[in-house]
Amino acid sequence: MPHLTVEYSNNLPQFEADKALMALNQALVASGQFEEIGIKSRTVRFDKFLVGTAPTGRAFVHAKLAILTGRTVEIKQTLSKSLLDALQAMCVWPAGLQVQLCVEVQEIERESYAKTSVG
Amino acid sequence: MPHLTVEYSNNLPQFEADKALMALNQALVASGQFEEIGIKSRTVRFDKFLVGTAPTGRAFVHAKLAILTGRTVEIKQTLSKSLLDALQAMCVWPAGLQVQLCVEVQEIERESYAKTSVG
Amino acid sequence: MPHLTVEYSNNLPQFEADKALMALNQALVASGQFEEIGIKSRTVRFDKFLVGTAPTGRAFVHAKLAILTGRTVEIKQTLSKSLLDALQAMCVWPAGLQVQLCVEVQEIERESYAKTSVG
Repeated sequence: MPHLTVEYSNNLPQFEADKALMALNQALVASGQFEEIGIKSRTVRFDKFLVGTAPTGRAFVHAKLAILTGRTVEIKQTLSKSLLDALQAMCVWPAGLQVQLCVEVQEIERESYAKTSVG
Repeated sequence: MPHLTVEYSNNLPQFEADKALMALNQALVASGQFEEIGIKSRTVRFDKFLVGTAPTGRAFVHAKLAILTGRTVEIKQTLSKSLLDALQAMCVWPAGLQVQLCVEVQEIERESYAKTSVG
Repeated sequence: MPHLTVEYSNNLPQFEADKALMALNQALVASGQFEEIGIKSRTVRFDKFLVGTAPTGRAFVHAKLAILTGRTVEIKQTLSKSLLDALQAMCVWPAGLQVQLCVEVQEIERESYAKTSVG
């Protein structure tokens, strides 16, 4: 833990997935909440998307952070804010495009989570 | 908010992602529950999937609607039903294929959700 | 129900998606908790991922099982353990790579879940 999934619309050529993953994982390490090696992050680019009912002019980046149950709302707020800050700092967003940046914190039930490491 | 993700198996050439996104977003606008510009939707097509243990003859479309906490069960039921209706109305499903259409409503914790808009 | 999503990093050529789906679905059938035809599973391979802050040497497979609300923690633990066992048994993981295998159980609210079958 945790799992981070960063989803984004494909009309953001400025979005560099590798750079984003490093910046976001560094923010998670810096939070002090997680073991470095446990942070598993990925990006997903959507070729088919729609914001509202306007086919053009809009974009989004949506980060989902999934953590085990048991943390306070305050810790979760701090985590989502730090990820949002990292997203904002990461790139110069294009003019003429309305970009929504969002961070969601999900909880994974601790009791039924199963994990092992090999290698 | 909200976020909508429509997943579907790749054995549905009848499924038109752009058309589906517009129909579903229009249903969400019509619900009166959301600001039009806040509706962020995407489709994901799965090339690798399996329904039960039968390698052929089955397909699925699964819509996940993620909304902030605080709405009643009745509102959530109305939302999922309207999305299911839109999926059903959207296309002539193929003969000889068993297609499961599903809609799930997820909740995102309001207190820890972080968002900003740029541009 | 249920929905199973198996995510994995793209540095695992040993991971055979079709074989994994069959092994995992068979485990779910064997659990006695689900109707065979209701088990809808898919895999997603991530070309862009990062485990911690180390760009190489690490991999992951993460299975998400989504079931309707109402099952006990014990049943959920049995389900996640059986899926983890199936993942472990499935392939010879590569030497020199640290692979994390994880299984998460999510709940879908029963009252607002909508579903139909066509064909």
